[in-house]
Amino acid sequence: MSDTRRRRVPRPVREQQIIDAAIQVFAKRGYHAASVDEIAELAGISKPMVYLYLDSKEGLFLACLRRETERLVAAFQAAAGEAHSPELRLQSGLDAFFTFVTEHRASWVVLHRQASELSPAIAAEMAQARRAVMEQVAGLARAGIADNTGGTRLDDEEADFVAHALVGAADTLTDWMERHPEESPERMTLRLMNMVWVGMRNVLEGEVWTPGEAGTTGG
Amino acid sequence: MSDTRRRRVPRPVREQQIIDAAIQVFAKRGYHAASVDEIAELAGISKPMVYLYLDSKEGLFLACLRRETERLVAAFQAAAGEAHSPELRLQSGLDAFFTFVTEHRASWVVLHRQASELSPAIAAEMAQARRAVMEQVAGLARAGIADNTGGTRLDDEEADFVAHALVGAADTLTDWMERHPEESPERMTLRLMNMVWVGMRNVLEGEVWTPGEAGTTGG
Repeated sequence: MSDTRRRRVPRPVREQQIIDAAIQVFAKRGYHAASVDEIAELAGISKPMVYLYLDSKEGLFLACLRRETERLVAAFQAAAGEAHSPELRLQSGLDAFFTFVTEHRASWVVLHRQASELSPAIAAEMAQARRAVMEQVAGLARAGIADNTGGTRLDDEEADFVAHALVGAADTLTDWMERHPEESPERMTLRLMNMVWVGMRNVLEGEVWTPGEAGTTGG
Repeated sequence: MSDTRRRRVPRPVREQQIIDAAIQVFAKRGYHAASVDEIAELAGISKPMVYLYLDSKEGLFLACLRRETERLVAAFQAAAGEAHSPELRLQSGLDAFFTFVTEHRASWVVLHRQASELSPAIAAEMAQARRAVMEQVAGLARAGIADNTGGTRLDDEEADFVAHALVGAADTLTDWMERHPEESPERMTLRLMNMVWVGMRNVLEGEVWTPGEAGTTGG
């Protein structure tokens, strides 16, 4: 077994191993404090080899961001694609998101807690990833509302508003999840769907929140 | 008029002027690229004087974070304190938040876009500010729901969940606002109250979102 490391490992496999190690170290230390030495050691290869595959610490971080964003979006899309109605698609998508965060904690820390300020390249990559997620969710919100109200449609602006609210809520709820490890991804999804989806449906059926209404029903 | 700058300015006044300038520069350049030279120039005083008042770039940034967090929380509390019912208090609080973001764009950029990773001191300050905001909103959600349903109360865990969802949604919606400068803070608040509050009220009255329900009403 001791000569396993010496066998030639195909480049793509080696790269994935380095990215796996890098995610653990970036999540644990943060971008600035993370050292390529520690990443190389965890990946079981030499530091010059790490630089040969991914040419800088920034390059390493970008590779981590790209792979994990793709995984997260793919998980969301796959889950959302299976369900029959748009509303169920959003539910499945949210469930896939909370499952990803639970099962890939280190990946999520890298995606969630890192600054958009680390470098222009990283900022651009983060903004791009965020836009991709927003577009997915906005598409589901638009289609979902149309479906459940027999024709009423959110326009693009409104769907984008809903997507921002949903993505922001889900994003911040991962902090809540960290303090409630007993809560399953399914329960998280049900709680959030309860909070926003029932409301949106009722709004489209004519129930509108107004300050006046609140004033009269308040105890 | 030309000797105005030479007059002795009380220390607290001078500090506020430096913080005003620092917020503009941090918002424009980001923490790492911001230079104390530019801040000093914008404040109209010498760089050594800046260091005399606030001893480092990190100290400057912390002073900005502290002052603006206090302003935002104070605006939220003042608005929320005036309204009669808890539901109206949340509405007023959200309105104060969106108004703050509109009127103090540079302050918001500093609070919103900065990394929690810049330094341990900054991370601690950001976490502390976030906790303060969450506690305010959780308190309103807890009280508001109790009030509007004649006794049904959210427990602490549920109120904290709602607060995370609301704060995350509002936070991310500021990106949407940036692309829709025509939208007033009042409209932002109504949209968000519509999306979440009507839903929460209905949930407590017995309407619960379930996957089954969506499946049967879809299409």
